[in-house]
Amino acid sequence: MAFQKQLPKKSEDLSAWYNAVILQSELADYGPAKGTMIFRPYGYAIWEIIQRHLDADIKRRGVENAYFPMFIPEHLLHKEKEHVQGFSPELAVVTIGGGEKLQEPLVVRPTSETIMYDTFARWVQSWRDLPLQINQWNNVVRWEKRTYLFLRTTEFLWQEGHTVHATHDEALATVHWAMDTYKNLYRDVFALPGYIGRKSDGEKFAGADMTLTYETLMPEGKALQSCTSHDLGQNFAKSFDIQFQSPNGVQQYAWQTSWGLSTRSIGGLIMAHGDDKGLRLPPKLAPVQIVILPVRAEEEIIVACREIAATLQREGFRVKVDDEPGQTIGWKFNKWELRGVPLRIEVGKRELEEGVLTIARRDTGEKVRIRIDDLPRAIGELLGDIQATLLAQADAFLQSSTHEVRTWEEFKTYMNAGRGFLRSYWCGSRDCESQIKEETKATTRCFSGTLAGGTCIRCGKETEEQWYFAQAY
Amino acid sequence: MAFQKQLPKKSEDLSAWYNAVILQSELADYGPAKGTMIFRPYGYAIWEIIQRHLDADIKRRGVENAYFPMFIPEHLLHKEKEHVQGFSPELAVVTIGGGEKLQEPLVVRPTSETIMYDTFARWVQSWRDLPLQINQWNNVVRWEKRTYLFLRTTEFLWQEGHTVHATHDEALATVHWAMDTYKNLYRDVFALPGYIGRKSDGEKFAGADMTLTYETLMPEGKALQSCTSHDLGQNFAKSFDIQFQSPNGVQQYAWQTSWGLSTRSIGGLIMAHGDDKGLRLPPKLAPVQIVILPVRAEEEIIVACREIAATLQREGFRVKVDDEPGQTIGWKFNKWELRGVPLRIEVGKRELEEGVLTIARRDTGEKVRIRIDDLPRAIGELLGDIQATLLAQADAFLQSSTHEVRTWEEFKTYMNAGRGFLRSYWCGSRDCESQIKEETKATTRCFSGTLAGGTCIRCGKETEEQWYFAQAY
Repeated sequence: MAFQKQLPKKSEDLSAWYNAVILQSELADYGPAKGTMIFRPYGYAIWEIIQRHLDADIKRRGVENAYFPMFIPEHLLHKEKEHVQGFSPELAVVTIGGGEKLQEPLVVRPTSETIMYDTFARWVQSWRDLPLQINQWNNVVRWEKRTYLFLRTTEFLWQEGHTVHATHDEALATVHWAMDTYKNLYRDVFALPGYIGRKSDGEKFAGADMTLTYETLMPEGKALQSCTSHDLGQNFAKSFDIQFQSPNGVQQYAWQTSWGLSTRSIGGLIMAHGDDKGLRLPPKLAPVQIVILPVRAEEEIIVACREIAATLQREGFRVKVDDEPGQTIGWKFNKWELRGVPLRIEVGKRELEEGVLTIARRDTGEKVRIRIDDLPRAIGELLGDIQATLLAQADAFLQSSTHEVRTWEEFKTYMNAGRGFLRSYWCGSRDCESQIKEETKATTRCFSGTLAGGTCIRCGKETEEQWYFAQAY
Repeated sequence: MAFQKQLPKKSEDLSAWYNAVILQSELADYGPAKGTMIFRPYGYAIWEIIQRHLDADIKRRGVENAYFPMFIPEHLLHKEKEHVQGFSPELAVVTIGGGEKLQEPLVVRPTSETIMYDTFARWVQSWRDLPLQINQWNNVVRWEKRTYLFLRTTEFLWQEGHTVHATHDEALATVHWAMDTYKNLYRDVFALPGYIGRKSDGEKFAGADMTLTYETLMPEGKALQSCTSHDLGQNFAKSFDIQFQSPNGVQQYAWQTSWGLSTRSIGGLIMAHGDDKGLRLPPKLAPVQIVILPVRAEEEIIVACREIAATLQREGFRVKVDDEPGQTIGWKFNKWELRGVPLRIEVGKRELEEGVLTIARRDTGEKVRIRIDDLPRAIGELLGDIQATLLAQADAFLQSSTHEVRTWEEFKTYMNAGRGFLRSYWCGSRDCESQIKEETKATTRCFSGTLAGGTCIRCGKETEEQWYFAQAY
């Protein structure tokens, strides 16, 4: 690539900036089939780091990885009524196999409850077989009319955890453990704060008794459902006949959970932290944490750059020396700024003579001078500080964009203008929920808490329940 | 599971043994749709270990992981003529999306050449963009009439590497590097020796100029194609218009390679090493390398077992203490023997008093007495020895089952009886190849070498080329 394209300003046109920054930083590209995307190495590397973090958490819990087929015979999908109703409009269906029309069409999994639970019914016989705790990392397909890189694509990657328990308490503990794990990942690794709460009946997962969600806030004030954890109750157990014999010989239906986090999370990451110059990646997710640029293509300088890189790599940092010939240092600045690498070190003769390097922070643009022999310690501190700064900025934005609103007029005003999260009383009726959506495009995002003495923002009925509302992706 | 099923004898009925050992050891299960399988946690854990080894090798080479969509618009598949002819009979096709008939059907990838190379044509413009080296870990679908757990299923998991180079030499070096990497993995980790050579024109990958294969030998004398690496020449580059500008400004077609290793490899592993008692897993691939069994469910013994396990885990060994209540020690013996865990340690009061443990080897059944304080060192040696023993046994079997055969009568006799690999002269004609297949079910597995003065095993024509023949899965 001999030239660099102009990046639209995030502050002026979020949507144009978002697409351009993804394509130009080579995170992803459009796939040939409508609504599909290609995860390029730079974007896939972020997913691999997410997987490393989350997979370790999942295994520590005793949940085991497995892999179920992606083709679901149609009759299985129809076993749980609410589930099939929820997913029907989004299905991709295989009707031809090996050159012949199939007797029974196969649905490409939009999620794996139905294909897994058909088998779980065979695996679970006695209380000894419980808990059954399975996770898989896989691709799923949901047909979408309007697509958006990372945030909404026909095919995406995720993990889906599925557990079966002897008691509802144990299942609920798993639902909350999963959401706690996601929360820690989002806050500590993505540097993305969010609200956690249960979904309304209208917004919960098709087939669940209760869905917990993690809702983050994007720059123009729209919410992003960032992952979910479901208490499936005994709904699927009854549809798929998952029963176990208790220690005292009684046959009982099992209690189930499912929970998932997808590559959509990377879309939130890009949108939340990026700026007019490009991505700003939190150090814990950055495939390259430090880029080292030789200011001139001289042997001595390049050797020194590689030595510095080797020192940092030994300490566990992810480092790249960009010594590509034929590109100016200014071009390289822009490239790595666009790619959101947290720290940039330029190395020239003077730096080597003085034994002091100048390190530039991507998040603030600040420059710091560090003695070479103090490098690993200083880099560790700087990366920690960048991680904390990004979280603090996102936290401040979330706080300042959340408003408690008690009148319908005020609600409409916020939703027309600044948007963000509104915490408001809602009576819980589907009518009010859909009227609010119709008139303001805002949906219930999640339950916030109870506080006596309120009235529904829409109908005025007395209620104690406060909910978060927002427009959403 | 309160009872243990009888395992058919491997030596008496390989096929029945193979299916039973997979189901009973909980490596895998049948999926609800015909020809699909479920990778259960024990089987998937083996795949994760394979991935860890191979992924590290791939990354060290500078090949980067990415992810391309699984849906291939039909017109792309048709761009390379030989390729589409080869794969047409095996395709699964999505014709309905989001409730509507699609204008253009989408093929579920049987392999990703066509979907990747359409995009590579955009990414590759200049010599600066080369080499382009991409790998992905994903699922693929090939419609199969007769299926077999792990060895032949409609959907399977694999890695597929795809590289683009400026010169044929560089591409060829990659083809050979990939096969070297696979060979090391198979020999050092799977303990599975095999023959490496190019495929005949009739057996090579559809669209390749040359295919290298790794052919292993299964117990009843059938060959298993265990992975392949393809020199694609400029075939796809011309079909997909992948051109680059050289440093001196000339437009040229690029040179390409692709190479893959799949979960089929686990089928070979099971079949090659197992015995009448169940699996025998090579230590480097065993999800559990050492199982520790308390002979009685007494607090003191169980605590000691956990301490021993912790000591070994600190040294990096994969250890499990089976202290499940309510099962006899004999039942547990059988369970872990069936599951092929390389080493078993039984711990009772006497062992703890004496400070000496008895360790049983799964491969030979031998028992060794080891002082507790010498444990980590001794375990390391034993596991190393088991790994070497399994390889030596497989090597001896391969050698003793390979015969140089120069007459058609002898060829037929071997193929009717003992089977195995036959090294024979072949003139290279498709006619002889298909006649040999018709009359003996043996196919050319790979090229062996040249030796002057031979005549084709089938037609008698003079030739210098010797090939490996075998019946195959």
